[in-house]
Amino acid sequence: METEPRLSPPSPLPERPPPRIVIERIQPELDGGLFPVKRVRGDMLEVTADLLRDGHERIAAALHVRQHGEPWARVPFRPRDNDRWGGRIRLTRIGRAAFAIEAWTDRFGSWREETEKKRAAGLRLGLELQEGYALVEAAAARSTGGLRTRLEGCLQRLRELAGEEAPRADLLLSRRVGLWMSLAPDKSDAVRSPERLVTVDRPAARFSAWYEMFPRSQGTDPNRSATLADCQARFPELRALGFDVVYFVPIHPIGEVNRKGANNRPQAGPSDPGCPYAIGSRAGGHTAIDPSLGSLDDFRRLVEDARRRGLEIALDFAVQCAPDHPWVREHPRWFRRRPDGSIRYAENPPKKYEDIVNVDFEQPDWRELWEALREAVLFWVNEGVRIFRVDNPHTKPAAFWRWLIEEVQGGHPDVLFLAEAFTRPKMMRLLAKEGFSQSYTYFTWRNTKAELTDYLTELTRGESVEYLRPNFFTNTPDILPFFLQGGGRAAFRIRLALAATLSPCYGIYNGFELCEARAVPGREEYQDSEKYQYKVWDWNRPGNIKDDIYRLNRLRRDSPALQLFDNLRFHEASHGSVLFYSKSSPDGSDRIAAAVSLDPRTPVDTDIVFPLAEWGLPPDARFVTTELFSDWRQEWAGARHRIRIDPAAQPALVWRLG
Amino acid sequence: METEPRLSPPSPLPERPPPRIVIERIQPELDGGLFPVKRVRGDMLEVTADLLRDGHERIAAALHVRQHGEPWARVPFRPRDNDRWGGRIRLTRIGRAAFAIEAWTDRFGSWREETEKKRAAGLRLGLELQEGYALVEAAAARSTGGLRTRLEGCLQRLRELAGEEAPRADLLLSRRVGLWMSLAPDKSDAVRSPERLVTVDRPAARFSAWYEMFPRSQGTDPNRSATLADCQARFPELRALGFDVVYFVPIHPIGEVNRKGANNRPQAGPSDPGCPYAIGSRAGGHTAIDPSLGSLDDFRRLVEDARRRGLEIALDFAVQCAPDHPWVREHPRWFRRRPDGSIRYAENPPKKYEDIVNVDFEQPDWRELWEALREAVLFWVNEGVRIFRVDNPHTKPAAFWRWLIEEVQGGHPDVLFLAEAFTRPKMMRLLAKEGFSQSYTYFTWRNTKAELTDYLTELTRGESVEYLRPNFFTNTPDILPFFLQGGGRAAFRIRLALAATLSPCYGIYNGFELCEARAVPGREEYQDSEKYQYKVWDWNRPGNIKDDIYRLNRLRRDSPALQLFDNLRFHEASHGSVLFYSKSSPDGSDRIAAAVSLDPRTPVDTDIVFPLAEWGLPPDARFVTTELFSDWRQEWAGARHRIRIDPAAQPALVWRLG
Repeated sequence: METEPRLSPPSPLPERPPPRIVIERIQPELDGGLFPVKRVRGDMLEVTADLLRDGHERIAAALHVRQHGEPWARVPFRPRDNDRWGGRIRLTRIGRAAFAIEAWTDRFGSWREETEKKRAAGLRLGLELQEGYALVEAAAARSTGGLRTRLEGCLQRLRELAGEEAPRADLLLSRRVGLWMSLAPDKSDAVRSPERLVTVDRPAARFSAWYEMFPRSQGTDPNRSATLADCQARFPELRALGFDVVYFVPIHPIGEVNRKGANNRPQAGPSDPGCPYAIGSRAGGHTAIDPSLGSLDDFRRLVEDARRRGLEIALDFAVQCAPDHPWVREHPRWFRRRPDGSIRYAENPPKKYEDIVNVDFEQPDWRELWEALREAVLFWVNEGVRIFRVDNPHTKPAAFWRWLIEEVQGGHPDVLFLAEAFTRPKMMRLLAKEGFSQSYTYFTWRNTKAELTDYLTELTRGESVEYLRPNFFTNTPDILPFFLQGGGRAAFRIRLALAATLSPCYGIYNGFELCEARAVPGREEYQDSEKYQYKVWDWNRPGNIKDDIYRLNRLRRDSPALQLFDNLRFHEASHGSVLFYSKSSPDGSDRIAAAVSLDPRTPVDTDIVFPLAEWGLPPDARFVTTELFSDWRQEWAGARHRIRIDPAAQPALVWRLG
Repeated sequence: METEPRLSPPSPLPERPPPRIVIERIQPELDGGLFPVKRVRGDMLEVTADLLRDGHERIAAALHVRQHGEPWARVPFRPRDNDRWGGRIRLTRIGRAAFAIEAWTDRFGSWREETEKKRAAGLRLGLELQEGYALVEAAAARSTGGLRTRLEGCLQRLRELAGEEAPRADLLLSRRVGLWMSLAPDKSDAVRSPERLVTVDRPAARFSAWYEMFPRSQGTDPNRSATLADCQARFPELRALGFDVVYFVPIHPIGEVNRKGANNRPQAGPSDPGCPYAIGSRAGGHTAIDPSLGSLDDFRRLVEDARRRGLEIALDFAVQCAPDHPWVREHPRWFRRRPDGSIRYAENPPKKYEDIVNVDFEQPDWRELWEALREAVLFWVNEGVRIFRVDNPHTKPAAFWRWLIEEVQGGHPDVLFLAEAFTRPKMMRLLAKEGFSQSYTYFTWRNTKAELTDYLTELTRGESVEYLRPNFFTNTPDILPFFLQGGGRAAFRIRLALAATLSPCYGIYNGFELCEARAVPGREEYQDSEKYQYKVWDWNRPGNIKDDIYRLNRLRRDSPALQLFDNLRFHEASHGSVLFYSKSSPDGSDRIAAAVSLDPRTPVDTDIVFPLAEWGLPPDARFVTTELFSDWRQEWAGARHRIRIDPAAQPALVWRLG
């Protein structure tokens, strides 16, 4: 039987008269308060709401904000326009913040407004002054200390002036009595909005440059794994190039059962290392380190070394197991059996991943499983890891991620989670709402002017800007985009410049800086992918684009405008394969403009139109820019200019004003 | 002390694994379900939502709808595009309807999809067929009757085919087994959305033509009140003109204390009748009839006569009292006293309304007051009145109106309330959300092309279209717009055509049809206003525009397009004072286009561009129209045409296609 709905809603009279003030359309707010919005430490939190009251009486209000670990603070909340009110506070603590709006009838302000009008109209004020006296009397009774003394002094003076209407009116309507009265408000009819939550992350959640590496490929011997020490040896250069985060694909022991061979062959040879996403073997599971990489002590040294250099380590969190992961033996109920007693391996028919089995989130011991996964994350948090890139979160329950992230961030609000959910757009957004600090996006496949303009407009101007922070990856171990496969070095420079200037968070996967473009024919898969074999790289290979990386990362650090996302604006470029856009800091002191050729092959001539009006400049303004890659300093006059972009020489022009 | 917020939200593990299906962005929905949306009987209710599930399994869903007085009905809810699902049901009952979405994992559908892929790839299906058998077995166990017999027959056949993979696969993947399985779904993980409410009104809530009258001015003797019988005598003509609703300003006894004289003079003469909004005297209050109008029996006769003619009566509900209203004596606590013991009269400094006192919604006996107001409304409901125009609702608590309207509509879902809230836009919208069936608007003061285009776009395309139904009044006893004062007969014809074609609900106040334009100089107040004195009219006065009214109301009845509001579209007219717009019925079978000159004085030549593409016609289409006021039948070729509008002859051209 289904329950009866409120067809004729019960409407018993409440105990007290319902509040006359209504608080509506609170901003920022996500899905009626179901999810927190996201900010970073240092942001100004701007809160607005409609405050409505029937009748003619005035409203007074306050914004209450509680930051993590601090008491409630009270901030002015004032009318702006058309019943819209607003207040603001600087966010100084990471962790969850809460805010609420309180509003009440401003009895004295209402009395004052009406009495002012009557005085201006020359009307008798006898009764009004008696009413004003009574309001001050009540305020004195509910106040203490100096305020009470002042209000009582006012009452005393009013009594002395009995019969003298004009001076009594002057006193009651004076600025100072108005101020005192606002300090002792009658809040008997105050309403308080529901509380709204804000996740305040550290700034790295919004601004950072990532370098993804295969730890085992950071050495010099193609026949064996590199070590954590080899990885560490690369830190000085990565820091010098301006990266903030070094992200390791899984470093755990790799399963031996059904291990994959080179180029994803179904059977591994005796020396094949297997795919690191097939996690777990006799050597351990999600809290162990592959012995060929090193020991936990080596890892601790590496984390500490990174910290000293201003780098941090991001680990991969992949909820999946090799068939010989210890959990398969220790927790057989976590894995669903098929009619023949086997565990179903991962598949996406007709593709098969025989080296991976998935845990079952619906079996009776699901609580044990959730807790074990939390403990795995907390293990690495205890080892100093503060960023987790989560593999395929969209194939596990969203509610699990919400719980896990809240559990971890509750004790460690500086931990960040990046969702690798290459899936349908609404699921990507749901995961971001549930708590992921950053998200992979479709940027990797958006190449044309229309594609980039549409997608970036959606990301920077749509509702998801309150909670979804993109991390623009140029490539990943799974994705060598066709655009890079066929476009030569210029294509890599184009995608790098786009990623680094369009999004404050971006990343490259090792090999990108070397313009590595050898793919499995017709697919976006790398040829001889590191996923399945040892590999060595010459990190100074000719044709590398490390100078571009260095210059872009340096500019990003210097430029407040490039550290924001929602300030992206597109501008007119006459040529259909030139993207022209700008970013400005909120105070306008920093402005970046970029013109990027999206065609890596053909030189183009294009008009570009600088947004002088948006920049507060007259149409004939003269302004000076410095171009990033050429160091060219130039004076421009007016908005429209014809430029030539030769991708062979320099496919992206990035100007900084001033 | 303020309460602690959930800074580190408690996240204990729930009893059961949380649902994996998430239902988001339900439409229609108002403020997260806080308020019902509005529809009328006969509308198709279209419901959509995003349904998301992690992983690769399929979702199945149903839309559950309960209409007033009926059991829950179950309607298909199917995927449309990009995780958006939808379903629809015809609304056949007035009153509150509720709907909810139910979704569950489609285990058999998921199995089927995966197995189909494997079969297509030529893979062995042994285990898959065993799993399919188990799914059918479970479905048989939870079904009954013929369905169970069919499923058991299928299982029997599968056992007979043991070892023969191809025919077993054919059977399990057959259409008929798919259908049977969809009739016995495994709903063990079903989630159900919160219920959402819909107020289903009778069609008159959205479509009706109103005629507002001063009952006491419907006679022939300027020295005494007309009677209800005189009002009734006007019904045949009003019905012939095409009106649906006759709205009476208050018909209650008028206070004698501080009664206003003609033209709002502070003191009434002995024969002055007073303002009908000063309600109540020795003769009674909100449930009495002014004896000079007639008796309750007269009123009953009038209501019955109206009903027989297809007219209905709307009464004014004004929550305010003359100082000699019986409530002032019987319920002294309902009125707040000033320091000298007097009751504050209504005022809007420096304006004074000494003939009116307002009830206090915050005094201790507020419950008694609310109930008395409800009883006053129900008194007239019992007398057959089904429409109330509410005076100044924005000066009483919004929560009171919500309660009152729910109380009345709970027992009488055919009762409609029109909010006369000429106040700030957000308060107007709040009152509509709280339950008012219709709302006065700013239409009365929107005259230019830009003003009308902006305002109508907001009303027809903004979020308020889900709950705010405008009733476009051309004038009211309080408002003789400057546009009408100075524009002559053409101005009246313009405003009439706009009101009647832009909005399915519109109204005129008596005298408008006679082009009455005598105002208090410099104000929008009528000279010798009926509000303060007896008046007689010659309803056939030369220059009247009753033929326009007749033609417009007849067209409105014939044209489904004019009975809707959200179908309004504006189109290009080259001249800045010509408004060109159209409305179409949802199936496109009825199309109306109107070109209205907004300048009542000067003939204009203008291009107009018919929206041929929107109408599904080629750019060079030939189409035929009949013009409303001239009966002119014309064939057009193509979209753009030059026309001349001479407001002295005919300021509005209204074409019906076909």
